[in-house]
Amino acid sequence: MKDVVRMGDAARGKDAGDDTFRDRLRVRILAACEAVLTAEGLDGLQARRIAQISDCSVGTLYNIFGDIDGLILQTNSRTLDELGRLLKAAARRSADGALEVRLNTLAIAYLDFATANQRRWRAVFEHRMAETATLPESYQEDRRQLLALIEHQLERAIADLEARSDAAHALFSAVHGIVMMSIDAKLGPFEPARCERQIRFLVGRVVAGLDRG
Amino acid sequence: MKDVVRMGDAARGKDAGDDTFRDRLRVRILAACEAVLTAEGLDGLQARRIAQISDCSVGTLYNIFGDIDGLILQTNSRTLDELGRLLKAAARRSADGALEVRLNTLAIAYLDFATANQRRWRAVFEHRMAETATLPESYQEDRRQLLALIEHQLERAIADLEARSDAAHALFSAVHGIVMMSIDAKLGPFEPARCERQIRFLVGRVVAGLDRG
Repeated sequence: MKDVVRMGDAARGKDAGDDTFRDRLRVRILAACEAVLTAEGLDGLQARRIAQISDCSVGTLYNIFGDIDGLILQTNSRTLDELGRLLKAAARRSADGALEVRLNTLAIAYLDFATANQRRWRAVFEHRMAETATLPESYQEDRRQLLALIEHQLERAIADLEARSDAAHALFSAVHGIVMMSIDAKLGPFEPARCERQIRFLVGRVVAGLDRG
Repeated sequence: MKDVVRMGDAARGKDAGDDTFRDRLRVRILAACEAVLTAEGLDGLQARRIAQISDCSVGTLYNIFGDIDGLILQTNSRTLDELGRLLKAAARRSADGALEVRLNTLAIAYLDFATANQRRWRAVFEHRMAETATLPESYQEDRRQLLALIEHQLERAIADLEARSDAAHALFSAVHGIVMMSIDAKLGPFEPARCERQIRFLVGRVVAGLDRG
């Protein structure tokens, strides 16, 4: 009993310091993931390797992130965060423009981010979890914020909430599809100018079509 | 010299029979690939395993398909072929309809094919070759035919050839993006009806916007 109490005390004592240590380690591990992801893509993200680079044990790594899916999700979450900040800045910059200008600014900012951070950006969409797994709330929140940014642009154009949500989903996925097919050279060699023309065609016609809707 | 001649004769003699044997083996290997792909996805397509299922050596397999990329490309080519036949049938069925009806028919047929053949469909877009590799001409032709089918719908709406090609690329990639994000549940759980609404929104607004263009 005495031992248990003492262990409890020690654990509590360590907890205060551990939080900081754990936080620092967490940041170090995620930085390692980001570096490996940038250099090699999703295949490089293996627990043993990341633990080695971060100078911790695989057990500690799993203790912090749950499992390899958890680690990848947190890494992808940082990518979504960065993308989110970039898109918010683009939205602010074009806030006074017409709808077509605002949507094009967001879409081109998305193309630029994907082009400059191909492996990290790709990992967000390549990673598929076990079908039984649920996404952490923070990740779902990142996603909601990205879509909310597009929905916000559509407020005046589409009054119905569900229709507006559908439109935001459709526009994000459509632009994503154009960017991905272009960067992956699935329909021909990657030509950034051509990709940009395709985005502007799509956004331009959808906005013109909304005026008629 | 005599030996060489005799070997040459034997080889020539074997050639005639070999073409048939080789063709049969080729079909058997591709059928094995398709089965493994359907059951397990791209990760299952390993040369040793496919050779074993097809009852041939890895050497023979490489002899026929060049390398694992060649094998995957030929398997994906069959998927594109099947998709192409399906889309052509959809185009025929709706040939007398308005542009919006024709494009929606193609897009929904694409969604249905992807939903029913998820792993094979995904493999076409997941597979990335070494950057130095070039796509075989037959594969490029499959791709051209898919895009030509969409371009054909746009003939009356967009006169300029380059603009029409851009539009066809953009529409295909956009619909692909919507289908992929939906099936991969990247923005929320997969709901076929919601995916279909997003496709119809996009196609509908683009066509309405073309009328204004």
